Amino acid sequence: MSYAKQMLNTYAARAADASALAAAIDAMNDCAQACIADTDADLGDESVTAMVACIRLCLDCADVCTATARVTSRPTAYNPRVAQPLLEACVAVCALCGEECETHADTHPHCRVCAEACRRCEQACRDLLAAAARQNRS
Amino acid sequence: MSYAKQMLNTYAARAADASALAAAIDAMNDCAQACIADTDADLGDESVTAMVACIRLCLDCADVCTATARVTSRPTAYNPRVAQPLLEACVAVCALCGEECETHADTHPHCRVCAEACRRCEQACRDLLAAAARQNRS
Amino acid sequence: MSYAKQMLNTYAARAADASALAAAIDAMNDCAQACIADTDADLGDESVTAMVACIRLCLDCADVCTATARVTSRPTAYNPRVAQPLLEACVAVCALCGEECETHADTHPHCRVCAEACRRCEQACRDLLAAAARQNRS
Amino acid sequence: MSYAKQMLNTYAARAADASALAAAIDAMNDCAQACIADTDADLGDESVTAMVACIRLCLDCADVCTATARVTSRPTAYNPRVAQPLLEACVAVCALCGEECETHADTHPHCRVCAEACRRCEQACRDLLAAAARQNRS
Repeated sequence: MSYAKQMLNTYAARAADASALAAAIDAMNDCAQACIADTDADLGDESVTAMVACIRLCLDCADVCTATARVTSRPTAYNPRVAQPLLEACVAVCALCGEECETHADTHPHCRVCAEACRRCEQACRDLLAAAARQNRS
Repeated sequence: MSYAKQMLNTYAARAADASALAAAIDAMNDCAQACIADTDADLGDESVTAMVACIRLCLDCADVCTATARVTSRPTAYNPRVAQPLLEACVAVCALCGEECETHADTHPHCRVCAEACRRCEQACRDLLAAAARQNRS
Repeated sequence: MSYAKQMLNTYAARAADASALAAAIDAMNDCAQACIADTDADLGDESVTAMVACIRLCLDCADVCTATARVTSRPTAYNPRVAQPLLEACVAVCALCGEECETHADTHPHCRVCAEACRRCEQACRDLLAAAARQNRS
Repeated sequence: MSYAKQMLNTYAARAADASALAAAIDAMNDCAQACIADTDADLGDESVTAMVACIRLCLDCADVCTATARVTSRPTAYNPRVAQPLLEACVAVCALCGEECETHADTHPHCRVCAEACRRCEQACRDLLAAAARQNRS
Protein backbone atom coordinates (compact mmCIF):
# COMPACT_ATOMS: atom_id res chain seq x y z
CA MET A 1 0.00 0.00 0.00
CA SER A 2 1.42 3.42 -0.91
CA TYR A 3 2.42 5.88 1.82
CA ALA A 4 -0.21 8.34 0.60
CA LYS A 5 -2.88 5.67 1.17
CA GLN A 6 -1.40 4.52 4.51
CA MET A 7 -1.23 8.08 5.82
CA LEU A 8 -4.76 8.96 4.73
CA ASN A 9 -5.99 5.74 6.36
CA THR A 10 -4.55 6.81 9.71
CA TYR A 11 -6.25 10.17 9.94
CA ALA A 12 -8.45 11.16 6.99
CA ALA A 13 -10.11 7.96 5.85
CA ARG A 14 -13.56 9.45 6.43
CA ALA A 15 -13.10 11.84 3.52
CA ALA A 16 -15.65 10.83 0.89
CA ASP A 17 -13.00 10.94 -1.79
CA ALA A 18 -10.15 9.38 0.22
CA SER A 19 -9.49 6.65 -2.29
CA ALA A 20 -9.63 9.01 -5.30
CA LEU A 21 -7.34 11.33 -3.35
CA ALA A 22 -4.74 8.68 -2.53
CA ALA A 23 -4.78 7.48 -6.14
CA ALA A 24 -4.27 11.03 -7.43
CA ILE A 25 -1.43 11.79 -5.00
CA ASP A 26 0.35 8.56 -6.01
CA ALA A 27 -0.16 9.30 -9.71
CA MET A 28 1.17 12.84 -9.32
CA ASN A 29 4.28 11.68 -7.46
CA ASP A 30 4.85 8.94 -10.06
CA CYS A 31 4.40 11.41 -12.90
CA ALA A 32 6.79 13.94 -11.36
CA GLN A 33 9.38 11.18 -10.97
CA ALA A 34 8.92 9.96 -14.57
CA CYS A 35 9.17 13.52 -15.94
CA ILE A 36 12.35 14.33 -14.01
CA ALA A 37 14.02 11.11 -15.19
CA ASP A 38 12.72 11.63 -18.75
CA THR A 39 14.32 15.07 -18.86
CA ASP A 40 17.66 13.52 -17.96
CA ALA A 41 17.25 10.77 -20.56
CA ASP A 42 16.24 13.32 -23.23
CA LEU A 43 19.32 15.41 -22.45
CA GLY A 44 21.47 12.32 -23.05
CA ASP A 45 19.88 11.73 -26.45
CA GLU A 46 22.05 12.13 -29.57
CA SER A 47 19.52 14.50 -31.09
CA VAL A 48 18.70 16.77 -28.17
CA THR A 49 17.31 19.40 -30.49
CA ALA A 50 14.40 17.10 -31.37
CA MET A 51 13.65 16.64 -27.67
CA VAL A 52 13.50 20.30 -26.59
CA ALA A 53 9.69 20.49 -26.55
CA CYS A 54 9.58 17.25 -24.58
CA ILE A 55 12.13 18.52 -22.02
CA ARG A 56 10.25 21.78 -21.48
CA LEU A 57 6.93 20.04 -20.94
CA CYS A 58 8.52 17.49 -18.61
CA LEU A 59 10.01 20.30 -16.51
CA ASP A 60 6.65 22.07 -16.21
CA CYS A 61 4.80 18.81 -15.62
CA ALA A 62 7.11 17.74 -12.79
CA ASP A 63 6.74 21.11 -11.05
CA VAL A 64 2.95 21.22 -11.31
CA CYS A 65 2.55 17.59 -10.23
CA THR A 66 4.85 18.06 -7.23
CA ALA A 67 3.04 21.18 -6.01
CA THR A 68 -0.41 19.69 -6.56
CA ALA A 69 0.59 16.51 -4.71
CA ARG A 70 1.86 18.58 -1.78
CA VAL A 71 -1.27 20.74 -1.54
CA THR A 72 -3.71 17.82 -1.89
CA SER A 73 -1.68 15.90 0.73
CA ARG A 74 -2.93 18.45 3.28
CA PRO A 75 -6.61 17.49 3.02
CA THR A 76 -7.75 18.75 6.41
CA ALA A 77 -7.77 22.31 5.12
CA TYR A 78 -8.87 21.48 1.58
CA ASN A 79 -10.03 24.61 -0.19
CA PRO A 80 -11.61 24.13 -3.63
CA ARG A 81 -10.73 27.71 -4.64
CA VAL A 82 -7.08 26.62 -4.60
CA ALA A 83 -7.26 22.88 -5.26
CA GLN A 84 -9.58 23.04 -8.27
CA PRO A 85 -7.52 25.35 -10.53
CA LEU A 86 -4.38 23.55 -9.38
CA LEU A 87 -5.83 20.18 -10.42
CA GLU A 88 -6.97 21.73 -13.71
CA ALA A 89 -3.43 22.96 -14.36
CA CYS A 90 -2.22 19.44 -13.57
CA VAL A 91 -4.71 17.86 -16.00
CA ALA A 92 -3.66 20.33 -18.72
CA VAL A 93 0.09 19.88 -18.33
CA CYS A 94 -0.18 16.08 -18.07
CA ALA A 95 -2.29 16.01 -21.26
CA LEU A 96 0.22 18.17 -23.16
CA CYS A 97 3.26 16.32 -21.83
CA GLY A 98 1.71 12.88 -22.40
CA GLU A 99 0.86 13.85 -25.96
CA GLU A 100 4.40 15.06 -26.68
CA CYS A 101 6.04 12.02 -25.04
CA GLU A 102 3.72 9.76 -27.05
CA THR A 103 5.20 11.07 -30.29
CA HIS A 104 8.64 9.78 -29.21
CA ALA A 105 7.37 6.52 -27.70
CA ASP A 106 8.35 4.27 -30.61
CA THR A 107 11.96 5.36 -30.67
CA HIS A 108 12.50 6.35 -27.02
CA PRO A 109 11.41 3.78 -24.41
CA HIS A 110 11.84 6.38 -21.65
CA CYS A 111 9.29 8.62 -23.36
CA ARG A 112 6.88 5.70 -23.64
CA VAL A 113 7.11 5.11 -19.88
CA CYS A 114 6.74 8.85 -19.20
CA ALA A 115 3.71 9.13 -21.54
CA GLU A 116 2.01 6.38 -19.57
CA ALA A 117 2.72 8.11 -16.24
CA CYS A 118 1.29 11.38 -17.66
CA ARG A 119 -1.87 9.68 -18.94
CA ARG A 120 -2.50 7.97 -15.61
CA CYS A 121 -1.94 11.20 -13.72
CA GLU A 122 -4.24 13.15 -16.05
CA GLN A 123 -6.96 10.55 -15.46
CA ALA A 124 -6.42 10.39 -11.67
CA CYS A 125 -6.69 14.19 -11.42
CA ARG A 126 -9.90 14.17 -13.51
CA ASP A 127 -11.30 11.46 -11.21
CA LEU A 128 -10.45 13.53 -8.14
CA LEU A 129 -12.08 16.63 -9.63
CA ALA A 130 -15.20 14.55 -10.41
CA ALA A 131 -15.28 13.08 -6.88
CA ALA A 132 -14.97 16.57 -5.39
CA ALA A 133 -17.78 17.84 -7.63
CA ARG A 134 -20.06 14.95 -6.58
CA GLN A 135 -19.30 15.69 -2.93
CA ASN A 136 -20.18 19.37 -3.40
CA ARG A 137 -23.55 18.49 -4.93
CA SER A 138 -24.57 16.08 -2.17
CA MET B 1 17.63 44.65 -10.72
CA SER B 2 16.26 41.21 -9.79
CA TYR B 3 17.64 38.07 -11.42
CA ALA B 4 14.22 37.34 -12.95
CA LYS B 5 14.35 40.73 -14.69
CA GLN B 6 18.03 40.41 -15.67
CA MET B 7 17.47 36.96 -17.16
CA LEU B 8 14.36 37.99 -19.09
CA ASN B 9 16.27 41.01 -20.42
CA THR B 10 18.95 38.78 -21.89
CA TYR B 11 16.68 36.54 -23.91
CA ALA B 12 12.96 37.23 -23.69
CA ALA B 13 12.65 40.99 -23.42
CA ARG B 14 10.51 41.12 -26.55
CA ALA B 15 7.65 39.41 -24.75
CA ALA B 16 4.82 41.95 -24.58
CA ASP B 17 4.35 41.23 -20.91
CA ALA B 18 8.02 40.89 -19.94
CA SER B 19 7.82 43.50 -17.21
CA ALA B 20 4.57 42.09 -15.74
CA LEU B 21 6.18 38.67 -15.92
CA ALA B 22 9.38 39.67 -14.11
CA ALA B 23 7.34 41.47 -11.43
CA ALA B 24 5.13 38.40 -10.92
CA ILE B 25 8.08 35.99 -10.70
CA ASP B 26 9.77 38.23 -8.12
CA ALA B 27 6.56 38.56 -6.12
CA MET B 28 5.99 34.78 -6.16
CA ASN B 29 9.53 34.05 -4.99
CA ASP B 30 9.23 36.73 -2.28
CA CYS B 31 5.88 35.34 -1.16
CA ALA B 32 7.17 31.75 -1.02
CA GLN B 33 10.09 32.93 1.10
CA ALA B 34 7.84 34.94 3.45
CA CYS B 35 5.43 31.99 3.85
CA ILE B 36 8.20 29.48 4.62
CA ALA B 37 9.70 31.80 7.25
CA ASP B 38 6.26 32.65 8.64
CA THR B 39 5.53 28.95 9.15
CA ASP B 40 8.69 28.63 11.22
CA ALA B 41 7.86 31.74 13.24
CA ASP B 42 4.28 30.51 13.83
CA LEU B 43 5.61 27.16 15.04
CA GLY B 44 7.74 29.03 17.59
CA ASP B 45 4.73 30.93 18.90
CA GLU B 46 3.55 30.26 22.47
CA SER B 47 0.02 29.59 21.25
CA VAL B 48 0.63 27.41 18.22
CA THR B 49 -2.95 26.19 18.29
CA ALA B 50 -4.16 29.66 17.31
CA MET B 51 -1.76 29.65 14.35
CA VAL B 52 -2.70 26.30 12.77
CA ALA B 53 -4.87 27.81 10.01
CA CYS B 54 -2.09 30.29 9.24
CA ILE B 55 0.56 27.55 9.06
CA ARG B 56 -1.54 25.42 6.71
CA LEU B 57 -2.23 28.30 4.34
CA CYS B 58 1.43 29.36 4.40
CA LEU B 59 2.51 25.81 3.45
CA ASP B 60 0.06 25.69 0.53
CA CYS B 61 0.91 29.24 -0.53
CA ALA B 62 4.65 28.57 -0.60
CA ASP B 63 4.19 25.44 -2.73
CA VAL B 64 1.86 27.08 -5.24
CA CYS B 65 4.01 30.23 -5.53
CA THR B 66 7.21 28.20 -6.04
CA ALA B 67 5.69 26.01 -8.76
CA THR B 68 4.05 28.96 -10.53
CA ALA B 69 7.31 30.92 -10.44
CA ARG B 70 9.16 27.95 -11.94
CA VAL B 71 6.65 27.41 -14.75
CA THR B 72 6.35 31.11 -15.65
CA SER B 73 10.16 31.36 -15.61
CA ARG B 74 10.15 29.18 -18.74
CA PRO B 75 8.37 31.72 -20.97
CA THR B 76 9.57 30.44 -24.34
CA ALA B 77 7.07 27.59 -24.20
CA TYR B 78 4.33 29.51 -22.40
CA ASN B 79 1.05 27.63 -22.65
CA PRO B 80 -2.03 29.44 -21.33
CA ARG B 81 -3.86 26.15 -20.72
CA VAL B 82 -1.33 25.45 -17.97
CA ALA B 83 -0.23 28.93 -16.90
CA GLN B 84 -3.70 30.44 -16.51
CA PRO B 85 -5.20 27.96 -13.99
CA LEU B 86 -1.85 27.92 -12.20
CA LEU B 87 -1.89 31.71 -11.84
CA GLU B 88 -5.54 31.51 -10.73
CA ALA B 89 -4.58 29.01 -8.03
CA CYS B 90 -1.80 31.38 -7.01
CA VAL B 91 -4.18 34.35 -6.80
CA ALA B 92 -6.62 32.29 -4.70
CA VAL B 93 -4.09 30.95 -2.22
CA CYS B 94 -2.35 34.33 -1.82
CA ALA B 95 -5.74 35.97 -1.14
CA LEU B 96 -6.66 33.35 1.49
CA CYS B 97 -3.22 33.35 3.10
CA GLY B 98 -2.95 37.15 3.07
CA GLU B 99 -6.37 37.42 4.72
CA GLU B 100 -5.46 34.94 7.45
CA CYS B 101 -2.05 36.53 8.11
CA GLU B 102 -3.74 39.94 8.29
CA THR B 103 -5.80 38.79 11.29
CA HIS B 104 -2.57 38.17 13.23
CA ALA B 105 -0.75 41.28 11.97
CA ASP B 106 -1.26 43.40 15.09
CA THR B 107 0.20 40.85 17.47
CA HIS B 108 2.64 39.01 15.17
CA PRO B 109 5.01 41.23 13.15
CA HIS B 110 6.05 38.20 11.06
CA CYS B 111 2.44 37.72 9.95
CA ARG B 112 2.21 41.40 9.02
CA VAL B 113 5.24 41.05 6.75
CA CYS B 114 3.86 37.83 5.29
CA ALA B 115 0.42 39.36 4.68
CA GLU B 116 2.08 42.13 2.68
CA ALA B 117 4.06 39.62 0.58
CA CYS B 118 0.83 37.70 -0.13
CA ARG B 119 -1.08 40.85 -1.16
CA ARG B 120 1.70 41.95 -3.51
CA CYS B 121 1.90 38.49 -5.04
CA GLU B 122 -1.87 38.27 -5.49
CA GLN B 123 -1.82 41.63 -7.31
CA ALA B 124 1.24 40.77 -9.43
CA CYS B 125 -0.43 37.53 -10.57
CA ARG B 126 -3.66 39.39 -11.40
CA ASP B 127 -1.60 41.90 -13.42
CA LEU B 128 0.12 39.10 -15.31
CA LEU B 129 -3.21 37.41 -16.09
CA ALA B 130 -4.56 40.76 -17.33
CA ALA B 131 -1.46 41.37 -19.48
CA ALA B 132 -1.79 37.89 -20.98
CA ALA B 133 -5.50 38.47 -21.71
CA ARG B 134 -4.71 41.80 -23.46
CA GLN B 135 -2.05 40.07 -25.55
CA ASN B 136 -4.52 37.35 -26.59
CA ARG B 137 -7.07 39.92 -27.73
CA SER B 138 -4.60 41.89 -29.88
CA MET C 1 7.64 -1.82 -10.77
CA SER C 2 8.15 1.81 -9.69
CA TYR C 3 8.57 4.56 -12.27
CA ALA C 4 12.08 5.28 -10.96
CA LYS C 5 13.01 1.65 -11.70
CA GLN C 6 11.20 1.57 -15.07
CA MET C 7 12.89 4.79 -16.20
CA LEU C 8 16.36 3.68 -15.12
CA ASN C 9 15.81 0.38 -16.92
CA THR C 10 15.16 2.19 -20.20
CA TYR C 11 18.33 4.22 -20.29
CA ALA C 12 20.70 3.82 -17.35
CA ALA C 13 20.48 0.17 -16.35
CA ARG C 14 24.20 -0.29 -16.91
CA ALA C 15 25.00 1.87 -13.90
CA ALA C 16 26.65 -0.41 -11.36
CA ASP C 17 24.40 0.91 -8.64
CA ALA C 18 21.17 1.13 -10.68
CA SER C 19 19.17 -1.00 -8.29
CA ALA C 20 20.45 0.80 -5.17
CA LEU C 21 19.69 4.06 -6.98
CA ALA C 22 16.11 3.13 -7.88
CA ALA C 23 15.48 1.90 -4.34
CA ALA C 24 16.83 5.15 -2.87
CA ILE C 25 14.79 7.37 -5.21
CA ASP C 26 11.62 5.44 -4.34
CA ALA C 27 12.39 5.62 -0.62
CA MET C 28 13.06 9.38 -0.81
CA ASN C 29 9.82 10.05 -2.69
CA ASP C 30 7.89 7.86 -0.23
CA CYS C 31 9.49 9.61 2.73
CA ALA C 32 8.74 13.08 1.36
CA GLN C 33 5.11 12.04 0.86
CA ALA C 34 4.84 10.58 4.39
CA CYS C 35 6.41 13.70 5.94
CA ILE C 36 4.11 16.11 4.08
CA ALA C 37 1.03 14.13 5.13
CA ASP C 38 2.35 13.74 8.68
CA THR C 39 2.73 17.50 8.98
CA ASP C 40 -0.92 17.92 8.06
CA ALA C 41 -2.01 15.21 10.51
CA ASP C 42 0.12 16.76 13.29
CA LEU C 43 -1.45 20.16 12.65
CA GLY C 44 -4.88 18.57 13.14
CA ASP C 45 -3.87 17.09 16.48
CA GLU C 46 -5.56 18.38 19.64
CA SER C 47 -2.21 19.08 21.26
CA VAL C 48 -0.31 20.73 18.43
CA THR C 49 2.21 22.18 20.86
CA ALA C 50 3.51 18.68 21.59
CA MET C 51 3.97 18.09 17.87
CA VAL C 52 5.98 21.20 16.97
CA ALA C 53 9.36 19.45 16.88
CA CYS C 54 7.84 16.71 14.74
CA ILE C 55 6.32 19.20 12.29
CA ARG C 56 9.60 21.08 11.89
CA LEU C 57 11.60 17.93 11.21
CA CYS C 58 8.96 16.65 8.77
CA LEU C 59 9.14 19.93 6.83
CA ASP C 60 12.93 19.76 6.59
CA CYS C 61 12.88 16.04 5.80
CA ALA C 62 10.37 16.45 2.96
CA ASP C 63 12.42 19.23 1.37
CA VAL C 64 15.76 17.40 1.61
CA CYS C 65 14.26 14.11 0.33
CA THR C 66 12.56 15.83 -2.62
CA ALA C 67 15.72 17.67 -3.69
CA THR C 68 17.93 14.59 -3.26
CA ALA C 69 15.48 12.45 -5.26
CA ARG C 70 15.47 15.04 -8.06
CA VAL C 71 19.27 15.31 -8.23
CA THR C 72 19.88 11.54 -8.07
CA SER C 73 17.20 11.04 -10.75
CA ARG C 74 19.61 12.72 -13.19
CA PRO C 75 22.29 10.01 -13.03
CA THR C 76 23.94 10.68 -16.38
CA ALA C 77 25.75 13.67 -14.91
CA TYR C 78 26.23 12.25 -11.43
CA ASN C 79 28.80 14.26 -9.52
CA PRO C 80 29.86 12.88 -6.13
CA ARG C 81 30.91 16.34 -4.91
CA VAL C 82 27.21 17.27 -4.97
CA ALA C 83 25.46 13.93 -4.51
CA GLN C 84 27.47 12.74 -1.52
CA PRO C 85 26.87 15.66 0.89
CA LEU C 86 23.26 15.76 -0.32
CA LEU C 87 22.78 12.08 0.54
CA GLU C 88 24.52 12.68 3.88
CA ALA C 89 22.08 15.50 4.65
CA CYS C 90 19.26 13.13 3.69
CA VAL C 91 20.57 10.38 6.00
CA ALA C 92 20.88 12.90 8.86
CA VAL C 93 17.43 14.43 8.50
CA CYS C 94 15.73 11.04 8.05
CA ALA C 95 17.46 9.76 11.21
CA LEU C 96 16.38 12.80 13.25
CA CYS C 97 12.84 12.83 11.86
CA GLY C 98 12.42 9.06 12.24
CA GLU C 99 13.59 9.27 15.86
CA GLU C 100 11.17 12.07 16.66
CA CYS C 101 8.22 10.38 14.90
CA GLU C 102 9.04 7.16 16.77
CA THR C 103 8.38 8.89 20.10
CA HIS C 104 4.78 9.57 19.00
CA ALA C 105 4.23 6.20 17.31
CA ASP C 106 2.21 4.62 20.12
CA THR C 107 -0.35 7.40 20.29
CA HIS C 108 -0.25 8.69 16.70
CA PRO C 109 -0.57 6.04 13.96
CA HIS C 110 0.40 8.64 11.32
CA CYS C 111 3.72 9.19 13.11
CA ARG C 112 4.31 5.44 13.21
CA VAL C 113 3.86 5.23 9.43
CA CYS C 114 6.09 8.29 8.93
CA ALA C 115 8.80 6.89 11.23
CA GLU C 116 8.91 3.75 9.11
CA ALA C 117 9.22 5.77 5.88
CA CYS C 118 12.08 7.77 7.44
CA ARG C 119 13.94 4.65 8.58
CA ARG C 120 13.64 3.01 5.18
CA CYS C 121 14.84 6.17 3.46
CA GLU C 122 17.79 6.56 5.84
CA GLN C 123 18.82 2.98 5.09
CA ALA C 124 18.30 3.29 1.32
CA CYS C 125 20.48 6.43 1.24
CA ARG C 126 23.19 4.69 3.28
CA ASP C 127 23.05 1.75 0.83
CA LEU C 128 23.41 4.12 -2.12
CA LEU C 129 26.38 5.88 -0.51
CA ALA C 130 28.00 2.47 0.13
CA ALA C 131 27.36 1.34 -3.46
CA ALA C 132 28.90 4.56 -4.78
CA ALA C 133 31.94 4.12 -2.52
CA ARG C 134 32.44 0.53 -3.75
CA GLN C 135 32.21 1.74 -7.34
CA ASN C 136 34.85 4.42 -6.71
CA ARG C 137 37.28 1.87 -5.28
CA SER C 138 36.95 -0.56 -8.17
CA MET D 1 15.03 45.00 2.37
CA SER D 2 14.47 41.40 1.25
CA TYR D 3 11.66 39.33 2.73
CA ALA D 4 14.20 36.89 4.18
CA LYS D 5 15.81 39.80 6.09
CA GLN D 6 12.47 41.34 7.10
CA MET D 7 11.17 38.02 8.41
CA LEU D 8 14.34 37.22 10.36
CA ASN D 9 14.23 40.73 11.84
CA THR D 10 10.76 40.10 13.23
CA TYR D 11 11.55 36.93 15.12
CA ALA D 12 15.11 35.64 14.88
CA ALA D 13 17.30 38.72 14.80
CA ARG D 14 19.17 37.60 17.91
CA ALA D 15 20.77 34.74 15.99
CA ALA D 16 24.49 35.50 15.89
CA ASP D 17 24.59 34.81 12.18
CA ALA D 18 21.26 36.46 11.27
CA SER D 19 22.79 38.73 8.65
CA ALA D 20 24.90 35.94 7.07
CA LEU D 21 21.76 33.81 7.09
CA ALA D 22 19.55 36.38 5.39
CA ALA D 23 22.25 37.02 2.78
CA ALA D 24 22.60 33.28 2.09
CA ILE D 25 18.84 32.73 1.78
CA ASP D 26 18.56 35.64 -0.66
CA ALA D 27 21.52 34.38 -2.68
CA MET D 28 20.09 30.85 -2.84
CA ASN D 29 16.68 32.07 -3.99
CA ASP D 30 18.33 34.34 -6.58
CA CYS D 31 20.53 31.51 -7.79
CA ALA D 32 17.61 29.08 -8.09
CA GLN D 33 15.71 31.70 -10.12
CA ALA D 34 18.71 32.39 -12.40
CA CYS D 35 19.28 28.66 -12.98
CA ILE D 36 15.64 27.95 -13.84
CA ALA D 37 15.56 30.82 -16.32
CA ASP D 38 18.97 29.87 -17.72
CA THR D 39 17.73 26.35 -18.42
CA ASP D 40 14.87 27.79 -20.44
CA ALA D 41 17.20 30.13 -22.34
CA ASP D 42 19.65 27.29 -23.03
CA LEU D 43 16.83 25.14 -24.39
CA GLY D 44 15.98 27.96 -26.82
CA ASP D 45 19.55 28.13 -28.07
CA GLU D 46 20.28 27.12 -31.68
CA SER D 47 22.97 24.70 -30.57
CA VAL D 48 21.28 22.98 -27.63
CA THR D 49 23.76 20.11 -27.80
CA ALA D 50 26.54 22.44 -26.66
CA MET D 51 24.42 23.50 -23.68
CA VAL D 52 23.52 20.07 -22.28
CA ALA D 53 26.10 20.13 -19.47
CA CYS D 54 24.97 23.63 -18.55
CA ILE D 55 21.29 22.61 -18.47
CA ARG D 56 21.99 19.60 -16.25
CA LEU D 57 24.00 21.61 -13.75
CA CYS D 58 21.40 24.38 -13.70
CA LEU D 59 18.66 21.83 -12.92
CA ASP D 60 20.67 20.35 -10.04
CA CYS D 61 21.73 23.77 -8.80
CA ALA D 62 18.16 25.10 -8.71
CA ASP D 63 16.94 22.08 -6.75
CA VAL D 64 19.74 22.17 -4.19
CA CYS D 65 19.48 25.96 -3.72
CA THR D 66 15.70 25.79 -3.27
CA ALA D 67 15.86 23.02 -0.67
CA THR D 68 18.74 24.64 1.21
CA ALA D 69 16.93 27.98 1.27
CA ARG D 70 13.81 26.30 2.65
CA VAL D 71 15.66 24.42 5.38
CA THR D 72 17.79 27.41 6.47
CA SER D 73 14.63 29.56 6.48
CA ARG D 74 13.49 27.52 9.51
CA PRO D 75 16.30 28.68 11.83
CA THR D 76 14.54 28.03 15.13
CA ALA D 77 15.25 24.32 14.82
CA TYR D 78 18.62 24.67 13.09
CA ASN D 79 20.49 21.37 13.21
CA PRO D 80 24.09 21.44 11.94
CA ARG D 81 23.98 17.69 11.15
CA VAL D 82 21.49 18.53 8.40
CA ALA D 83 22.33 22.12 7.52
CA GLN D 84 26.09 21.67 7.15
CA PRO D 85 26.15 18.91 4.50
CA LEU D 86 23.27 20.66 2.75
CA LEU D 87 25.23 23.91 2.58
CA GLU D 88 28.29 21.96 1.41
CA ALA D 89 26.23 20.41 -1.41
CA CYS D 90 25.06 23.92 -2.26
CA VAL D 91 28.63 25.28 -2.35
CA ALA D 92 29.70 22.37 -4.58
CA VAL D 93 26.86 22.62 -7.09
CA CYS D 94 27.10 26.43 -7.29
CA ALA D 95 30.86 26.15 -7.95
CA LEU D 96 30.36 23.56 -10.71
CA CYS D 97 27.41 25.39 -12.27
CA GLY D 98 29.11 28.79 -12.07
CA GLU D 99 32.23 27.36 -13.73
CA GLU D 100 30.21 25.83 -16.58
CA CYS D 101 28.09 28.96 -17.11
CA GLU D 102 31.29 31.04 -17.14
CA THR D 103 32.51 29.16 -20.22
CA HIS D 104 29.43 30.37 -22.15
CA ALA D 105 29.43 33.88 -20.71
CA ASP D 106 31.00 35.61 -23.72
CA THR D 107 28.47 34.29 -26.21
CA HIS D 108 25.41 33.82 -23.97
CA PRO D 109 24.48 36.83 -21.81
CA HIS D 110 22.00 34.65 -19.85
CA CYS D 111 24.87 32.36 -18.82
CA ARG D 112 26.92 35.36 -17.73
CA VAL D 113 24.09 36.48 -15.43
CA CYS D 114 23.61 32.93 -14.15
CA ALA D 115 27.36 32.49 -13.51
CA GLU D 116 27.30 35.61 -11.37
CA ALA D 117 24.30 34.35 -9.35
CA CYS D 118 26.10 31.03 -8.78
CA ARG D 119 29.32 32.71 -7.64
CA ARG D 120 27.46 34.95 -5.20
CA CYS D 121 25.52 32.01 -3.83
CA GLU D 122 28.64 29.89 -3.44
CA GLN D 123 30.27 32.72 -1.47
CA ALA D 124 27.18 33.42 0.66
CA CYS D 125 26.95 29.72 1.61
CA ARG D 126 30.66 29.64 2.49
CA ASP D 127 30.15 32.76 4.65
CA LEU D 128 27.22 31.13 6.43
CA LEU D 129 29.22 27.94 7.08
CA ALA D 130 32.06 30.08 8.48
CA ALA D 131 29.67 32.07 10.69
CA ALA D 132 28.16 28.83 12.01
CA ALA D 133 31.63 27.41 12.72
CA ARG D 134 32.64 30.59 14.63
CA GLN D 135 29.43 30.35 16.66
CA ASN D 136 30.15 26.71 17.53
CA ARG D 137 33.65 27.56 18.79
CA SER D 138 32.50 30.41 21.05
